Amino acid sequence: VGSKSALELFEDAVASKNMERRRPKLAKGTRDYDPEQQTIREKAINTITNVFKQHGAVSIDTPVFELKETLTGKYGEDSKLIYDLSDQGGELLSLRYDLTVPFARYVALKNLASIKRFHIAKVYRRDQPQMNKGRYREFYQCDFDIAGPSGTMVAESEVLKVVCEILTQVGVGEFAVKINDRVLLDAMIEIAGIDSSMFKSVCSSIDKLDKEPWEKVRKELVVDKGVTEEAADIISKFVVLNGECWEMYEKLTKDGLFNESAKGKEALEKMKVLFGYLDALEITPRIRFDLSLARGLDYYTGLIYEAVTLDPDFKVGSIGGGGRYDGLVGMFSGKDIPAVGASIGIERVFTILEEKAKKAGKVRPTSTVVLVASVGKGMVAEKFKMCNELWKAGIAAETLYQDNPKPQKQLDYAFESGIPYIIWLGEDEIAGGEFKLKDIEKKEENTFKRETLIDT
Amino acid sequence: VGSKSALELFEDAVASKNMERRRPKLAKGTRDYDPEQQTIREKAINTITNVFKQHGAVSIDTPVFELKETLTGKYGEDSKLIYDLSDQGGELLSLRYDLTVPFARYVALKNLASIKRFHIAKVYRRDQPQMNKGRYREFYQCDFDIAGPSGTMVAESEVLKVVCEILTQVGVGEFAVKINDRVLLDAMIEIAGIDSSMFKSVCSSIDKLDKEPWEKVRKELVVDKGVTEEAADIISKFVVLNGECWEMYEKLTKDGLFNESAKGKEALEKMKVLFGYLDALEITPRIRFDLSLARGLDYYTGLIYEAVTLDPDFKVGSIGGGGRYDGLVGMFSGKDIPAVGASIGIERVFTILEEKAKKAGKVRPTSTVVLVASVGKGMVAEKFKMCNELWKAGIAAETLYQDNPKPQKQLDYAFESGIPYIIWLGEDEIAGGEFKLKDIEKKEENTFKRETLIDT
Repeated sequence: VGSKSALELFEDAVASKNMERRRPKLAKGTRDYDPEQQTIREKAINTITNVFKQHGAVSIDTPVFELKETLTGKYGEDSKLIYDLSDQGGELLSLRYDLTVPFARYVALKNLASIKRFHIAKVYRRDQPQMNKGRYREFYQCDFDIAGPSGTMVAESEVLKVVCEILTQVGVGEFAVKINDRVLLDAMIEIAGIDSSMFKSVCSSIDKLDKEPWEKVRKELVVDKGVTEEAADIISKFVVLNGECWEMYEKLTKDGLFNESAKGKEALEKMKVLFGYLDALEITPRIRFDLSLARGLDYYTGLIYEAVTLDPDFKVGSIGGGGRYDGLVGMFSGKDIPAVGASIGIERVFTILEEKAKKAGKVRPTSTVVLVASVGKGMVAEKFKMCNELWKAGIAAETLYQDNPKPQKQLDYAFESGIPYIIWLGEDEIAGGEFKLKDIEKKEENTFKRETLIDT
Repeated sequence: VGSKSALELFEDAVASKNMERRRPKLAKGTRDYDPEQQTIREKAINTITNVFKQHGAVSIDTPVFELKETLTGKYGEDSKLIYDLSDQGGELLSLRYDLTVPFARYVALKNLASIKRFHIAKVYRRDQPQMNKGRYREFYQCDFDIAGPSGTMVAESEVLKVVCEILTQVGVGEFAVKINDRVLLDAMIEIAGIDSSMFKSVCSSIDKLDKEPWEKVRKELVVDKGVTEEAADIISKFVVLNGECWEMYEKLTKDGLFNESAKGKEALEKMKVLFGYLDALEITPRIRFDLSLARGLDYYTGLIYEAVTLDPDFKVGSIGGGGRYDGLVGMFSGKDIPAVGASIGIERVFTILEEKAKKAGKVRPTSTVVLVASVGKGMVAEKFKMCNELWKAGIAAETLYQDNPKPQKQLDYAFESGIPYIIWLGEDEIAGGEFKLKDIEKKEENTFKRETLIDT
């Protein structure tokens, strides 16, 4: 401390001025998680983690920052949203923008050929925050990937099972999972006679069909993108089709819609294999085969899917998605590592759970079962003895920290914290070895002996 | 993608060159956590979290970066170790250096007068990494604080209980918690006739007594710091004393060592109160009253303590510490918020647990109980049906993703992953409704009917 630099002394001075001048602030687009929010989040993360573990997935973690060069060139235009660290001498570093690039870097560094892993962690984007819409600059992602060789639609089936299981167990209400295949979209473009160079452009229009009517999308295709009227008519036959898996399969086969494309027919037969597995996994009723689903086609190579809420109370849109992206995980490895992935829209799931909790009433941020309270003075040691017995039995217990808290204050504390039971200690109780356990909600009091505390 | 800037195109080119040239690297001083490490860490974090919750603590989280001004002037010389983010337009930001300053900022922002919270999260320091010694630039901290009014030594007692409970449950082997009081150190300096301005300087020498003999420390005090021979002699009477709580109290009282200082006598009487509570909490045998303990005296105002391992196999030194710091939590609030805190040396705890696991053999990163395997072709749907039944019953199950994996390959997978049971499916089994469950370790096979799967 004796050797502060001029700069440091200056910083100290500025800091103390700032402290006088204003209350502390959070960085733009970030937020603290309060105990109530943490309770909801931790519970959801535990549920999700348990599903991943049920399916034999392992957990990995990577640093919050990577070498800048690891992220460079991976995000196209969105690269400008990457947070860079200051050049303080040494390497140029950036905060992770997602969990996929660090995962690919991890797979290359460890020289892995296959791994089934999940990763739930925060990522960082210098986006324009819209906090009322739940869009922050620091937010959680929740990724699950089965990387490595797979038979036809086998890994895909388990990924869909995991997504359905998570969304069911976490309690987001009714949902559906829309599925499609990149190859079916390729085939559709081919059948319509549109050049394959137009693929992404055409698909980005089609993907709007969940929000806009066909007429508007058609106009965009014809007027803005130069698709012929005839081609648009052919496309319209495909993209209006969606429904229950087997019905869709029967219809597409019967009508021979993909007959003109060999790869289309092949992809449709793979869908049949998938549906058989989804039946075995008992999730077919959740799945909708939707030929207008055309998301994230920069990297998907096979099955694509998106989970959406159906509960009219929680219109948050997509709550998960993913697909097969055979080129992505191997990007640093120089190896071909096929992979199917899922990304749970965990921030949206949190939002739904928070809204549900708000409707249901107060969330308890603690899990304390008993407040050990006192009547009279000098009872701290006795209260600690009682707490200690409860803790030893695995029962969460608290006592107030004042030397001699007033009974009313202790009652208020239990009430505000939602603690269901109070044990009252007084000189009589300690002398007699009999205590009163009060059930706050039921307003019942039971007397018990010290020896039988835990059974009570 | 059509509108890449020249800079982005340049970055892409550099990135692809780099990718050809070399394998991806981690940022200096950081590391990935492998599935095995994650398994150990998650288990330890769960255990620790449960102890905090048993004591009614709430969990909070804060962003990984704060406004630079929030951190400025809080760490003295160590400020140079703070990671700053690049100025990309907007605010100046820094990565959090610890969890204490963000906690104080949180308390001020939420306008809290009291909170009992824990926070387990990563912090960032641009220190010289010593990875063989487990010193990284990204590492976990685990903080617990009881902020708000407390009777004499009441909150202190519960904090010590929590520390002992965590270190016991997490399984670091034998440990002790050394305690002392800032006020006793003040009194000692006063009794020795040393000016109070020398307090920190003298204490930093005394704190070395756990590693160096008194003669060396005495020389440092007299020669380097200008303490008189007489004063050093008085100090020596105090700092050699350590031992069991009550014995120390009896000795100090009988010898009247603090009699010349009113505040020293008062602090000693408070120690007596503490020891009574520690008895009630049954942790007195873990505690050593050590008058040479003099850590972190920049901010501690009362009780100080440090947990150390006693197991000769794991000489990692301090595995936790803390004390009362009444000025710290209120630093942004402009309010007086008394607080007692604990910081678990969680990275060192992880190191101990990893070494123990290494000695005990392989750590299983998955918790899969059953591998569902097949003999013959076209069994995927049947395997999925079996897995689905197991998952529904809460049993972690896996199956290989190949269409027709060879039996040996499936056996190898179960063996390498440490999966204890295999269920073999073949055409005969499916037709007959009877299956074989193999216990891999015991090399036992049991036959069971489909209906009784879960009971088996």
